[in-house]
Amino acid sequence: MEVTNRYVVITEHVDGPPEERHFKIKSETLSLELESGSKDIIVKNLYVSIDPYQINRMKSYTSSQSAMNVAGPLNSGEAIAANGVAKVVVSGNPEFQKDDLVSGSVTWGEYSVIKPGGSIRKLDLLGFPLSYHVGPLASSGLTAYGGFFKVCKPKRGEKVFVSAASGSVGHLVGQYAKLLDCYVVGCAGTDEKVALLKKLGFDDAFNYKQETDMKATLKRYFPEGIDVYFDNVGAEMLEAALSNMNVFGRVAVCGVISEYTDRNRRAVPDMIDVVYKRITIQGFIYLDFTDIYADFFSTTCDHLRSGKIKPLEDISDGVESIPAAFVGLFHGRNTGKKMVKIAED
Amino acid sequence: MEVTNRYVVITEHVDGPPEERHFKIKSETLSLELESGSKDIIVKNLYVSIDPYQINRMKSYTSSQSAMNVAGPLNSGEAIAANGVAKVVVSGNPEFQKDDLVSGSVTWGEYSVIKPGGSIRKLDLLGFPLSYHVGPLASSGLTAYGGFFKVCKPKRGEKVFVSAASGSVGHLVGQYAKLLDCYVVGCAGTDEKVALLKKLGFDDAFNYKQETDMKATLKRYFPEGIDVYFDNVGAEMLEAALSNMNVFGRVAVCGVISEYTDRNRRAVPDMIDVVYKRITIQGFIYLDFTDIYADFFSTTCDHLRSGKIKPLEDISDGVESIPAAFVGLFHGRNTGKKMVKIAED
Repeated sequence: MEVTNRYVVITEHVDGPPEERHFKIKSETLSLELESGSKDIIVKNLYVSIDPYQINRMKSYTSSQSAMNVAGPLNSGEAIAANGVAKVVVSGNPEFQKDDLVSGSVTWGEYSVIKPGGSIRKLDLLGFPLSYHVGPLASSGLTAYGGFFKVCKPKRGEKVFVSAASGSVGHLVGQYAKLLDCYVVGCAGTDEKVALLKKLGFDDAFNYKQETDMKATLKRYFPEGIDVYFDNVGAEMLEAALSNMNVFGRVAVCGVISEYTDRNRRAVPDMIDVVYKRITIQGFIYLDFTDIYADFFSTTCDHLRSGKIKPLEDISDGVESIPAAFVGLFHGRNTGKKMVKIAED
Repeated sequence: MEVTNRYVVITEHVDGPPEERHFKIKSETLSLELESGSKDIIVKNLYVSIDPYQINRMKSYTSSQSAMNVAGPLNSGEAIAANGVAKVVVSGNPEFQKDDLVSGSVTWGEYSVIKPGGSIRKLDLLGFPLSYHVGPLASSGLTAYGGFFKVCKPKRGEKVFVSAASGSVGHLVGQYAKLLDCYVVGCAGTDEKVALLKKLGFDDAFNYKQETDMKATLKRYFPEGIDVYFDNVGAEMLEAALSNMNVFGRVAVCGVISEYTDRNRRAVPDMIDVVYKRITIQGFIYLDFTDIYADFFSTTCDHLRSGKIKPLEDISDGVESIPAAFVGLFHGRNTGKKMVKIAED
């Protein structure tokens, strides 16, 4: 049996802001019969995740070497790896059976071929919607949980600032921080997002596009200084946060979306502040949090069930919507976790 | 009984590179008889330490607020706090007797009046020269030891880069790192200093003034990348080190001398590298290392006795030499720990 598999590819390397013209949908005939002895698994994708960091693999090799070293460079015409949930169509791996639900690394497409060594695992929905297994119970959630608890090392009642706070990770960080009785302020790019953050329990939130002097803005929201900054954006927001940081403050650098598409856009931190205030700035990736995965997963399931953590989801429909969904991330068009629903089941 | 006390003051705030004209020697009559009930201690200074960080207190308040918050601003005409060793002349504090040797926070002058709450303690020479108690056994040593072992968290055999490696702290960091079997490269500003570093046991060293592309230079000295960077200088050296850093690399920011006297001189780190390489950048001050002081002190005494650690000292004579000694730090005129010998005993 054969199907037509439509999947997203880049048409060229993307070194500036991504545009829809950088992508196209490729159609390919995919045989659903495995060659004898093959250990491949073919899955039908249901939901795929759309994440800003994916831009870093789309660049030309030399412009983002450290990113390439983590995930390998992406060439035009190749399927693009992404987290997602999927259903097994055919399996050469005895641990997976037809119709098993799985989650892990698939591709931006209708079908993915998972090679031996690929990173998928069986998925038990545990009563949650499929989309939760792409957002708060998957890499976004683990990024928020590990980044906050393990990298920020927060103490009860500390003052926490989250940038891109209505994004896939930020809105979860703020809610974890509230569960630790922290004072939490988030920033976002529209008044609607700001209102949403307050509804999620953030103590305060502001629209950074309406502010002209970020240092003064943060001073207003944090008259007693910032203890923890969860950075999703980099550049001048990072500078401003450092300048408002308390002694022994911690900065978890989760991502720097404002720097991803412009190599000239950089934070110029005041290192004298870093010394005298004994600030720690730490980059991290959720892949390093395997040691706390079990704790993350059970804690987050509990909070989702009790309603203490409310996920924000932003779901588009169909493989054709992926390029626009991805491009939109860099214009703040998403509210919460951006994903694309490829198929119902 | 009265003495004439000569001490150094600033004539104005110093917001750029310090020059000798910014300083003058003030003479004052000092009574060596304490008022009844006074708990003051008057000490005669023997050696005082000359450190780059002292510039940060000499600036106008607004230009170095975080530094001021640690040590308080310095006004023109005031005695300037500095670490040193001294001898008690008269004491209103029953814990200290005339002729006791002490070490701790004194001033750039011939005599210092230590008020109650001042930070001095009795000094047992333990067979070492007085100067060792200003250098490797005092704040420079603790800064090197704590900065390296506690902040850098080095593992045996890791690749360590030290800037300003022939400075008061750098030359000790390199030697501690060699004792942990690390591969250690230092940079300094003259060929003589480079030769000296190699004699101290650094695996390699280079004269940064003869290099034009610092990223390429570090790539040459660290073909396998840098695991630990002990930063004493900031700016482009920090950028270059980050760009050559291995995954999970650590940067201990001890000082940023190249940025102290020029607010426009800054590091512009590539935060994408910081994220993907999971780099930690941490500022610190030796004052935070009280928990490891005993360990530092006994370990360092042992190494000094066995000759495994060799201090580099750069000693000028007399209170009049302090301004030139201090100004010289910012032109790399010192080799090793800069101090001024005020009196023989």
